[in-house]
Amino acid sequence: MNLSSIKALTFDVFGTVVDWRSTIIREGRALGKQKALEVDWEEFAHAWRAGYEPFMHRVRTGELPWLNIDALHWMILDELLVRFRIAGLSEAEKDHLNRVWRRLDPWPDARAGLARLRRRFLVAPLSNGNIALLTNMAKRADLRWDCILSSELAHCYKPDPEVYLTAARLLGLRPQQVMMVAAHNTDLLAAQAVGFRTAFVYRTEEYGPNQTTDLTPDPSVDVIARDFEDLADQIA
Amino acid sequence: MNLSSIKALTFDVFGTVVDWRSTIIREGRALGKQKALEVDWEEFAHAWRAGYEPFMHRVRTGELPWLNIDALHWMILDELLVRFRIAGLSEAEKDHLNRVWRRLDPWPDARAGLARLRRRFLVAPLSNGNIALLTNMAKRADLRWDCILSSELAHCYKPDPEVYLTAARLLGLRPQQVMMVAAHNTDLLAAQAVGFRTAFVYRTEEYGPNQTTDLTPDPSVDVIARDFEDLADQIA
Repeated sequence: MNLSSIKALTFDVFGTVVDWRSTIIREGRALGKQKALEVDWEEFAHAWRAGYEPFMHRVRTGELPWLNIDALHWMILDELLVRFRIAGLSEAEKDHLNRVWRRLDPWPDARAGLARLRRRFLVAPLSNGNIALLTNMAKRADLRWDCILSSELAHCYKPDPEVYLTAARLLGLRPQQVMMVAAHNTDLLAAQAVGFRTAFVYRTEEYGPNQTTDLTPDPSVDVIARDFEDLADQIA
Repeated sequence: MNLSSIKALTFDVFGTVVDWRSTIIREGRALGKQKALEVDWEEFAHAWRAGYEPFMHRVRTGELPWLNIDALHWMILDELLVRFRIAGLSEAEKDHLNRVWRRLDPWPDARAGLARLRRRFLVAPLSNGNIALLTNMAKRADLRWDCILSSELAHCYKPDPEVYLTAARLLGLRPQQVMMVAAHNTDLLAAQAVGFRTAFVYRTEEYGPNQTTDLTPDPSVDVIARDFEDLADQIA
């Protein structure tokens, strides 16, 4: 692969840059203690994450109008509060809980690896998270991006090809000049299909100790890295 | 004015954050020397800047399709090369010259003032410059924004109200929670009309020693500042 043609790296965020699972479990447990709730927060975190695919599907098919992830997370949360029998939250407390997605902690290697990669490439998230979510997350976590890109700017969700093409267009680059970095084969294969280069990063604990998905990178990806530091070692 | 409700500052860029005039003159003179051109680069810089309003007008009226500023600058440059009798540039040299807009130097107070303001507020450019231009400019000039916002995301140009409304929506904020910072009354009044707070910053040399415009802030603006450091003194 000719690295010299690559000008920008775009990153999946949930699971690739940040560890949604342990942050949600941690905040959930703190809330549970405060409110004397009996909730399996591990199951709750997985259910919240899993709920977003069916909702995105309803947006894709037109059953729902365009709604960003803040709005989808809110709709899923409404269902989870019933399912997990979480009662007695004020609207402000519910809003605070919904914003946990802005407070997700980066994986231990993410900030430093990103800083190294940023010296050589333009770096931007390319997430289904919306601009406000990603911007606030980056500020809190001190992740230094060159700009914030999101599915929101294409009004459709990954892995829709339009998301990747919109990102390349906004960067003023050809798809071949952009490398998608993700811990998920689906995301990488969709980016690859429109011409992006691809880097698979192992996040073997994204779904906890019993993870079964994305433990093996698709053989077609350009680069395979253990984490962001290893990715920087290989390409920066 | 109740500052506590303000969550984000959006900045005009050309003239407010960066000094387009002296950078273009400096690069023009260097090019002129290299190519043995007899050009009044001061006049050239002003003509390039002035050319963009008529082209934006043609986009607004639908005479031209949506084109971003990179494309408009290129079309204006094509005319200027004829008018100023600048011959003998290769396509690559012309492209490099067109990208001078990505290499504009910040005003001396901009970087440090912005860093102070960023501690309290979300900060983002909200420029007619396109995302790629603003992203590359920020990287080169080491301006640390929280995200990059642009007219490009609304597919229309300031002072169209949709530009400001799109920015607030992407930030997840009400217009009243955003303050527009600019050295231009037109920009501020348009932002104010949709509910933004406004800060006027004096840039008395944007157009050189003979500047006549925007030397007096409109009386309706919320804050008047000498520069970004002064703005930080007042609101950060």
